[in-house]
Amino acid sequence: MTPEQKAEALLPGERLDDLQRGGLYIIQDPALFCFGMDAVLLSDFAACREGDRVLDLCSGNGIIPLLLYARYPGITVTGLELNEKSTSLASRSFRLNSLEDKLSMVTGDVREASRLFGHASFHVVTANPPYMKAAGGLKNPDSAKAMARHETACSFDDVCAAAAHCLKSSGRFYLVHRPSRLPELIVAMKEHHLEPKRMRMVHPCADKAANLVLIEAVKGGGEELKLLPPLIVYKEDGSYTDEIYRIYGAES
Amino acid sequence: MTPEQKAEALLPGERLDDLQRGGLYIIQDPALFCFGMDAVLLSDFAACREGDRVLDLCSGNGIIPLLLYARYPGITVTGLELNEKSTSLASRSFRLNSLEDKLSMVTGDVREASRLFGHASFHVVTANPPYMKAAGGLKNPDSAKAMARHETACSFDDVCAAAAHCLKSSGRFYLVHRPSRLPELIVAMKEHHLEPKRMRMVHPCADKAANLVLIEAVKGGGEELKLLPPLIVYKEDGSYTDEIYRIYGAES
Repeated sequence: MTPEQKAEALLPGERLDDLQRGGLYIIQDPALFCFGMDAVLLSDFAACREGDRVLDLCSGNGIIPLLLYARYPGITVTGLELNEKSTSLASRSFRLNSLEDKLSMVTGDVREASRLFGHASFHVVTANPPYMKAAGGLKNPDSAKAMARHETACSFDDVCAAAAHCLKSSGRFYLVHRPSRLPELIVAMKEHHLEPKRMRMVHPCADKAANLVLIEAVKGGGEELKLLPPLIVYKEDGSYTDEIYRIYGAES
Repeated sequence: MTPEQKAEALLPGERLDDLQRGGLYIIQDPALFCFGMDAVLLSDFAACREGDRVLDLCSGNGIIPLLLYARYPGITVTGLELNEKSTSLASRSFRLNSLEDKLSMVTGDVREASRLFGHASFHVVTANPPYMKAAGGLKNPDSAKAMARHETACSFDDVCAAAAHCLKSSGRFYLVHRPSRLPELIVAMKEHHLEPKRMRMVHPCADKAANLVLIEAVKGGGEELKLLPPLIVYKEDGSYTDEIYRIYGAES
């Protein structure tokens, strides 16, 4: 990409980040919500197959579609995001990478997914939803950052309802969330017949409580969970573990 | 204990095991069910306070009452066990340790707990229940070993119902079980208002799937789970980790 192309793609306040995967870039706007390790871990945890149609709920700036495509060039991904600034930014990122025919964004509400998308129309649904319950005390509950963090626009139950509607039978739902909410997450998934089949806890260090949980649920799956080895982020000396280096360093 | 006292305590086929905790012994009969690491880990995970009344469901040969008493001499523990041979053996173990006024056994069905014990009559309930669903193909579903492993005599829902009946408000329920069943365990606990608050996964090695899960639930507790650091049993070289040595080596 030439400096001219870069400059053309950006609006004031935006920046261009190299994803270090197959030459892919993402446009980010710090005034909205920039992606974190959770998105990277979810994209690594999700397993796709050639030709899969993937729906990414609460898609933000489109980071998960981009990272999934980097691993699985044979898939197509649709991102659903309520904030129009985010969808416009994500669409420009997809164009910048010449991936308009593989990745697309839809501006819309997770609660409207059954109107927006056909029943059983996707093989895989991913979600990195808001982690916190809607809090009455939020200063600006409609801001993009507040909506990315708090369930002001959709509850976890809404996310499950959308996934259950959009997934084919035996389709896979991939989620990253907070362990503190694990019991209610499991209840909601099971109520929507999304049966948890694989789960992985993410611990900042081997001797610290988990701060993220990765879950694979299967629509209509039978009851039997595999609880994978813990994913540890930092070694005792403060450096990243080999697995985190692998996840971040992977070239597609 | 003199050799004569030991010999008197044992019936044919039985053996006497030193628990290596405060001079405590347990009588075990390999024809029934001998305790494993799960009972030791559960006893270490459970937290009791001076004066607590504790109920141990599916108590078998009374290993959990003995190990809990070794850590907390200020508690009293009642074991509930369906198999009369097991309760008789446990009662003789308690007598042998001169703990008849601290530890006691009741022969009875978990499904009868609401008849056997008063509502809200215990501070703590522990359970190391059968891990496997009742299987139609069992050769001898009424054998003590089959009942200890399979839910032929009580389902996990029965265990939760008993715990919810017997616990005081904010009383603590401690459970060891298989991670493969975690989603349905969580649903059953929440249906009985036993809210999971602390959870710990037990992995044979750091790079292997978990094979046990330890759960603390609080009767009527609010929703917020802490997912503790993983408990790893073996180091890479095949020796026990320091934490397993601590748990096994603890002298009360």
